[in-house]
Amino acid sequence: MNDFQLRVERLQALLQKRKIALAILSFSDQMRYLSGYAEHGHERLLALLVPAEGKPVFLVPSLSEQAARGNPAHIKHIVAWEDQDGWQMGFTSLLADMNVHRSDTLLIDDELPSVHLMQMQALMPGIICLPAGELLSSLRRVKSEVELAAMQQAASAIDSVADEVIGSLRAGVTEKAVQRSVLDACAVRGMPPAFTPLVCFGANGAMPHHASGETCLQAGDMVILDIGCMAGGYCSDITRTLSFGKPADADAEKVYDIVLQAHHAARSAARPGVSCEEVDAAARACIEARGYGKQFLHRTGHGIGLSCHEPPYIVRGNATLLEPGFCFSVEPGIYLPERFGVRLEVIAAVTAAGTVSLNADPPSSLLVV
Amino acid sequence: MNDFQLRVERLQALLQKRKIALAILSFSDQMRYLSGYAEHGHERLLALLVPAEGKPVFLVPSLSEQAARGNPAHIKHIVAWEDQDGWQMGFTSLLADMNVHRSDTLLIDDELPSVHLMQMQALMPGIICLPAGELLSSLRRVKSEVELAAMQQAASAIDSVADEVIGSLRAGVTEKAVQRSVLDACAVRGMPPAFTPLVCFGANGAMPHHASGETCLQAGDMVILDIGCMAGGYCSDITRTLSFGKPADADAEKVYDIVLQAHHAARSAARPGVSCEEVDAAARACIEARGYGKQFLHRTGHGIGLSCHEPPYIVRGNATLLEPGFCFSVEPGIYLPERFGVRLEVIAAVTAAGTVSLNADPPSSLLVV
Repeated sequence: MNDFQLRVERLQALLQKRKIALAILSFSDQMRYLSGYAEHGHERLLALLVPAEGKPVFLVPSLSEQAARGNPAHIKHIVAWEDQDGWQMGFTSLLADMNVHRSDTLLIDDELPSVHLMQMQALMPGIICLPAGELLSSLRRVKSEVELAAMQQAASAIDSVADEVIGSLRAGVTEKAVQRSVLDACAVRGMPPAFTPLVCFGANGAMPHHASGETCLQAGDMVILDIGCMAGGYCSDITRTLSFGKPADADAEKVYDIVLQAHHAARSAARPGVSCEEVDAAARACIEARGYGKQFLHRTGHGIGLSCHEPPYIVRGNATLLEPGFCFSVEPGIYLPERFGVRLEVIAAVTAAGTVSLNADPPSSLLVV
Repeated sequence: MNDFQLRVERLQALLQKRKIALAILSFSDQMRYLSGYAEHGHERLLALLVPAEGKPVFLVPSLSEQAARGNPAHIKHIVAWEDQDGWQMGFTSLLADMNVHRSDTLLIDDELPSVHLMQMQALMPGIICLPAGELLSSLRRVKSEVELAAMQQAASAIDSVADEVIGSLRAGVTEKAVQRSVLDACAVRGMPPAFTPLVCFGANGAMPHHASGETCLQAGDMVILDIGCMAGGYCSDITRTLSFGKPADADAEKVYDIVLQAHHAARSAARPGVSCEEVDAAARACIEARGYGKQFLHRTGHGIGLSCHEPPYIVRGNATLLEPGFCFSVEPGIYLPERFGVRLEVIAAVTAAGTVSLNADPPSSLLVV
């Protein structure tokens, strides 16, 4: 039995325990976790059906049949549907084979496009649908040694990309050009990006998800790089904040120090048995104490692995207790509209004693280049 | 009133006519079409709510609030939710303000992640949900002169990228390296890719959605390039098939000729008043007549515009009648497992008299480079 088959068995045990008839996984990382294969079906349904008992089945567009047959989990049952027929007939017939009834509960991939879910609900009125994310997370959140090694490789690579790109910053360069340098530096290392690199100069850094544009780098600008890459299918994700020349904003160093304190407070709080929300609270308390609570616009972090964002989320309301092998980002931030932002992010892996960072620690004071 | 406001008004008129209380658009091109703004919320709900009557509202994570406020449609009502609170309270309260009741019908973005839809259904049991794609398509599928100009620009650019990349093919190069050349050539032209370029050598071309890998180009290989870029937010999408040196497979030229005939048959069939399925049938008949019907694994084409794939789909069962201004791909293909594939794709724009191609026509016989 290979690792994928073992994962499918563990999922099936959970389905039986929760009295869920069937899990329907989309092209997402859930499918990749269970089968080693995943392809984006876009408007075409491409799904992995895992019944509580019995063999899993791929339902795929015919143009993906050959690729699906190569799935590393050696799932042999592949039902291919033709564009001209649609997937509905094959789906209905599979559910009948699996003895799924209209009063049953299905586990649905969080990322399945809604159009497919609405069509399934129309075919099976009365069916109860639950999001798959949390249940799958209970299988995925503790990383094995092999998974940790891949994550460490991705983490070390993105650290070196950051060092290289920061070392080459020059006045007048655009955010887009730096974004491209990040992509090139990842490519040279043979690693795909984990997400579109975020590069923010000056006031753009006050928007946590600013889309990099034609803004040119000027002396005195605060710079935020939020970048990540993938190794062996696993993600890295870091954020560096620095100043290009002496910071123009008089509060830059102070705000950096507050975020750094919050970063360390979260890292120190995290250890097995502590809840995700306690880690968030530790970071948030530091920032609130200094009067910037309202400018910390987001949760303290997110789980990471095959997906760049996955449970557990480090956020108020999440009582999940940390266990050795959990990996998550620690990334408190402060955002001052029209001025600048500071965010300091590394990936922490929970150990028996506390956490280790897979990345280089943030500098102990604002880096000026 | 700007173009976006006009589009919202046209959608609202349709909602009223169909007795739909509210449309919920996700980070998709639907949101971009209606507001000029779209940001991927990933696991965070980022939605545009358009009630049948009254003002549209953005419901966004607080970390996207500032970006959303800059929306080109000047939608002023922005409700930002915090990670620690979730979006549910804001959503429920907005629906109450809009007088949406539990027996009402909602139009849901096809691409909204299912996790959000399931949570909305749990908050509003009894609500009726319909996919938004087809209804929005009736607004989007006829392209204006301005839209056609952008699409022509994207089409011409990708043609020149193809010429450049094909001109630089050398023995031993990998699919990934050629994929990278395509991305570089797009970047030089200042155009983002419309999708991950598909580069297939030899037998890999038999898988329509083969992910480019480390396969090296050898003399005699058939080569498929399926590439596209974006100009002014609009997509191009072409497929070129050629042979690197004299084709090793004795059937390569014959299969090319059959696909070319099918391509021209579809193009000739397409004109206002003809249905999408008739265009598909015209291409399919050519291929079936030559005995390769089962190897034509997909529909003949897809609409294109802000999205690379959008209605109308050129497929059996789609009785939509073509109108001037529709734009769609014509891309018949034949796939011979373990051997090679041929696909010839251009974008056709429907005119009063027939269609014009936005791209260079496929060569009249198999190109050998």
